[in-house]
Amino acid sequence: MVERIPVAVLGATGSVGQRFVQLLEGHPWFELAAVTGSERRVGKEFGKTCHWIVQERMPDSAKSLVVQETVPEGLDVPLVFSALPSGVAKQKESLFASAGMVVCSNAGAFRQEPDVPILLPEVNPDHAHLVDVQRRLRGWEGCITTNPNCTSTGVTIALKALQDSCGLSKVFAVSLQAISGAGYPGVPSLDILDNVIPHISNEEPKFEWEPRKMLGSFEGEEIALADFLMSTHCNRVAVSDGHLVCMSVETRDPITVAEAAQILGSYAPPEAGFGLPSTPEPVIFVSSDPDRPQPRLDRMTGKGMTTVVGRVREDSIFGLKFVVLSHNTIRGAAGGSIYNAELLRREGLLGI
Amino acid sequence: MVERIPVAVLGATGSVGQRFVQLLEGHPWFELAAVTGSERRVGKEFGKTCHWIVQERMPDSAKSLVVQETVPEGLDVPLVFSALPSGVAKQKESLFASAGMVVCSNAGAFRQEPDVPILLPEVNPDHAHLVDVQRRLRGWEGCITTNPNCTSTGVTIALKALQDSCGLSKVFAVSLQAISGAGYPGVPSLDILDNVIPHISNEEPKFEWEPRKMLGSFEGEEIALADFLMSTHCNRVAVSDGHLVCMSVETRDPITVAEAAQILGSYAPPEAGFGLPSTPEPVIFVSSDPDRPQPRLDRMTGKGMTTVVGRVREDSIFGLKFVVLSHNTIRGAAGGSIYNAELLRREGLLGI
Amino acid sequence: MVERIPVAVLGATGSVGQRFVQLLEGHPWFELAAVTGSERRVGKEFGKTCHWIVQERMPDSAKSLVVQETVPEGLDVPLVFSALPSGVAKQKESLFASAGMVVCSNAGAFRQEPDVPILLPEVNPDHAHLVDVQRRLRGWEGCITTNPNCTSTGVTIALKALQDSCGLSKVFAVSLQAISGAGYPGVPSLDILDNVIPHISNEEPKFEWEPRKMLGSFEGEEIALADFLMSTHCNRVAVSDGHLVCMSVETRDPITVAEAAQILGSYAPPEAGFGLPSTPEPVIFVSSDPDRPQPRLDRMTGKGMTTVVGRVREDSIFGLKFVVLSHNTIRGAAGGSIYNAELLRREGLLGI
Amino acid sequence: MVERIPVAVLGATGSVGQRFVQLLEGHPWFELAAVTGSERRVGKEFGKTCHWIVQERMPDSAKSLVVQETVPEGLDVPLVFSALPSGVAKQKESLFASAGMVVCSNAGAFRQEPDVPILLPEVNPDHAHLVDVQRRLRGWEGCITTNPNCTSTGVTIALKALQDSCGLSKVFAVSLQAISGAGYPGVPSLDILDNVIPHISNEEPKFEWEPRKMLGSFEGEEIALADFLMSTHCNRVAVSDGHLVCMSVETRDPITVAEAAQILGSYAPPEAGFGLPSTPEPVIFVSSDPDRPQPRLDRMTGKGMTTVVGRVREDSIFGLKFVVLSHNTIRGAAGGSIYNAELLRREGLLGI
Repeated sequence: MVERIPVAVLGATGSVGQRFVQLLEGHPWFELAAVTGSERRVGKEFGKTCHWIVQERMPDSAKSLVVQETVPEGLDVPLVFSALPSGVAKQKESLFASAGMVVCSNAGAFRQEPDVPILLPEVNPDHAHLVDVQRRLRGWEGCITTNPNCTSTGVTIALKALQDSCGLSKVFAVSLQAISGAGYPGVPSLDILDNVIPHISNEEPKFEWEPRKMLGSFEGEEIALADFLMSTHCNRVAVSDGHLVCMSVETRDPITVAEAAQILGSYAPPEAGFGLPSTPEPVIFVSSDPDRPQPRLDRMTGKGMTTVVGRVREDSIFGLKFVVLSHNTIRGAAGGSIYNAELLRREGLLGI
Repeated sequence: MVERIPVAVLGATGSVGQRFVQLLEGHPWFELAAVTGSERRVGKEFGKTCHWIVQERMPDSAKSLVVQETVPEGLDVPLVFSALPSGVAKQKESLFASAGMVVCSNAGAFRQEPDVPILLPEVNPDHAHLVDVQRRLRGWEGCITTNPNCTSTGVTIALKALQDSCGLSKVFAVSLQAISGAGYPGVPSLDILDNVIPHISNEEPKFEWEPRKMLGSFEGEEIALADFLMSTHCNRVAVSDGHLVCMSVETRDPITVAEAAQILGSYAPPEAGFGLPSTPEPVIFVSSDPDRPQPRLDRMTGKGMTTVVGRVREDSIFGLKFVVLSHNTIRGAAGGSIYNAELLRREGLLGI
Repeated sequence: MVERIPVAVLGATGSVGQRFVQLLEGHPWFELAAVTGSERRVGKEFGKTCHWIVQERMPDSAKSLVVQETVPEGLDVPLVFSALPSGVAKQKESLFASAGMVVCSNAGAFRQEPDVPILLPEVNPDHAHLVDVQRRLRGWEGCITTNPNCTSTGVTIALKALQDSCGLSKVFAVSLQAISGAGYPGVPSLDILDNVIPHISNEEPKFEWEPRKMLGSFEGEEIALADFLMSTHCNRVAVSDGHLVCMSVETRDPITVAEAAQILGSYAPPEAGFGLPSTPEPVIFVSSDPDRPQPRLDRMTGKGMTTVVGRVREDSIFGLKFVVLSHNTIRGAAGGSIYNAELLRREGLLGI
Repeated sequence: MVERIPVAVLGATGSVGQRFVQLLEGHPWFELAAVTGSERRVGKEFGKTCHWIVQERMPDSAKSLVVQETVPEGLDVPLVFSALPSGVAKQKESLFASAGMVVCSNAGAFRQEPDVPILLPEVNPDHAHLVDVQRRLRGWEGCITTNPNCTSTGVTIALKALQDSCGLSKVFAVSLQAISGAGYPGVPSLDILDNVIPHISNEEPKFEWEPRKMLGSFEGEEIALADFLMSTHCNRVAVSDGHLVCMSVETRDPITVAEAAQILGSYAPPEAGFGLPSTPEPVIFVSSDPDRPQPRLDRMTGKGMTTVVGRVREDSIFGLKFVVLSHNTIRGAAGGSIYNAELLRREGLLGI
């Protein structure tokens, strides 16, 4: 057996941090070697200081790790996964990249930077090479890559399949998002029991921009945004995990409902994103049941990595409508970041 | 004090039937004189046979009413409210209308008939006079009027305000609907706990058609559908009462966000629908909070009769977007039907 | 009309504070004149700084009140209601009492003090005169009274009826408590969706002690605890409002199920607690339905002030078992405190 | 590899039936060979007629099974698992037993029969031999065994550990039961959202009797009930899976809290129930966290077969109190029945 690459999780005691810890258990390439956390937890054992909220049990190997301060000093790993809150991510992640480490970040801090890729290996593995530009421009030996906002994830994967086949012109998307997307403690129960919150702070601008960057292509050393219009509404609903999105799409070339279902269901990712340990099987699953996907029943499809599409049907304005479900803390967060790291390793961008 | 008009509720033991019973308590014009129910309940006291699920207590006056068979014989009232299930409504309601009674129905059975109005007194009180046509064509002394599907209700009221001011061209609407909309027992709890169901049987076609009929106008003896496109997605969420709808709207004439908010918030219904006992105060409430309306907090605005709008903002494709909330079993069902009956009385269409 | 007594609410922007504000609207004796809040809100209008989470609308009269610092200086009222968090209540409430004001507190800080009464006007109005002792011992012109923990409230009222008739020997009580009992933000939604938390910090000791103090009687200048054993389990469940408690009770004198139901349902409070503006009507409602009380359907009985009992039946170990429901933020918190203030006024203890 | 024993599931399309189908996937000893269902499903493919509500995907091997009528004719299997509704179980299960098949039933129909065992292999594997009596008395070649009501399951396992060490005298138990315990469609969502139902039809009598039969011992050819008192309250809460029970226990011999925790956590089942494919690992897990077990986080412990105990502490009346959690559709239903069948095979009672 090959030796596994030691990795660290930054901000490991939060809800996404815990997912990283859980998903890295038994990973064939990476081995959790260190965890960092906020000041009051530094020096304590992870198993004792972490209020574990993931349904799967905490891996035994993680329990005895001693929480370290979130600084590069003392972390002897080539790769870190960042579950840091947005507020501190910008400054902290830079430190790790300039100290020579590869940062696979779930935070939004760097997504808008022209030299930082937002990666979905099923969609735009070629964007990984934006880190060459980044290293040159910033003089870093390490680098920063990001995965998209959890709401953008499944939607972008579904849109990619259509973009390849018939082009995109207009996209209308309304999300029904799970509470785990807000972290922990996150949404107070009094706000969501018997309720919907039709607003998520700063979510709609991200959701209208990130898919266009990921679906864009290199123009020189930057990514030109894909040329389609996108309008969104974001809602929080009483679901633990799994973001569901209602979509209406106008394609550039006409397409029938049957063709769309076929294109979505047979979508094959670019070769670079295929065959990695975390590549979803299948990448997209298209349900023919009239009332699927549903978060509770379908979020764990493909170990939580598959994008589930259903209700593909005709839209009276845009031509095509359907529903997309994606597990927000697995495919849309920690699992996506790990998948990105696998891509970087294959592409020789880990520097080891 | 004027004598109140005796009325009956058909199908009084179901969830909408119970709302009729509760809302008629203390009504200034109408007095609950009789209730009908399914065969196994006939002859029993309402208070004993009805599994009451409305939060407000069952009115004492209703408790001792003996459940009657759902036939006109033996019902000595000029006005009946129908909470019958769609399957039996078509045949049953005809019997009452031909026996000379006015039927204010919450069922969908007759909504598509050209001579039967779908009424919202805040929107299209003039359509009430379609019953003159109906009486002539069908030879009925009574008549049938309907209120729209609960999902169409608030949406149509909001659209009416915009239609009056700047015309409508395209409407995109995604609903997050309460479980009470499915009646009782309705949605099994295993289907909706920690879940969303992105499908409601036969709901989208109604929701894409009914608003266009209500916003249409007389052409001769029929209503010509309003000339705009409408596309919808319907979802069931874990909310007890209150349908929330995310809307994007393209108007015929350009309009700013500020203008739209002002038009919606100051909407005054046509005179015929104004000043009735159930006229909502206000008809539309526009919230300026960034995260409202919310079902749990806002559904009882104006005693559950007000349409609550919020998040009026710019849409990158259609120009305008906002969120609409309407109480589905009050404004969208029993309360709406009672409001319709008030309109019919004022218009001299009750025949008494 | 008599002039109303101006009152203040301390800690008015929290969940219980908001209930005080809502319930004082239109009170016949008291008028909300001032609100206090945490430092970051001082100087702001209540209507703008308060994140309102009560279903009833914020009273217009409260909106323009400017939030004041929580100190006696500048508060020209004889009576304050305290919704302060336990951590600060002890020190803050003392300041108000020593400055000559009567403090009706919802906090637990003083409940264990021998000279501070825990009051339920339906149960122990005579305990109000403990404030005479308190004033003498502490040299205060004002005083502090408390209402019990929300879980103890309904349980103690039901136990009082039994204690009067047949004495109490052993009480077993398991609570299913609403999330609003934990305040706001309180319970994270990720902790309670599709879940039960079988633990509430420090709740069981309070719940096993407070009823015994309230059901105790004066021995000299102190209250001797009532002489019965009490064992409890406390659970948090996904309910917004309304604490439900399963109880098994061994009485000193034997009693049949029918007698117990009759005693509970016909319970009349001591005269001093009767006929006040907030006296529940009835004090106890006994349901004969096999599956009641239920929080959603029964919590608002008697405007949320009535204690609802159901399922009175035989217990194979203790003789008697039943279920108790009480609205935790109305009867069990703000409404209870206001009821206490009414009692103090009648007893001439307000000092005005 | 040894050939697996072909088995059938009776009533396979209901919620417990589906669990049988899911759990039998990949079982080392048994192979799902047939499914039966209600008349309207007979002749249809299981994958098409079954409305699958279990979170795990339907096994591919089950999809193509054709639903058969629930009669022994045409079923060529030595062992059937019954998920039949109580109403029909009594008559149907007899047919299968008299036709020579072993019936492992989840229904309550036969539990009270003196010659039918209620089995928990961790607790009373010796009771399996009651089928020898049963066969002789009824002249059956087959036989019927049952697993207990889902609420009794975890409670009885915990009580067994204590009974062995220090005897039982009195048991007080209050359940908070998951909605899946009521089957599908089961509990209407309007009844349980923001609510608790403090009553489950016929549950308390079962819950007060079944543990005493399972903890009893052979007296001649019958089981004498264990000699302790038991009192229960049963509640339905908004949890999908996992019954939680608050327990207070008086033991015959005094025991400290620490001893009780140690006894529970180190409980080893009788040899006959040990080392079977479904034997839980561990049988009982004792949590030392102050707020565990919780249904959402702990129900899948030991693949849903482990009984989880927590909050072991002193009870002021009975001496000992704690909380028990057991997965109601796995350990408490289908998984328990399969475990029973494994025991019967080991004991040579399958007749093959």
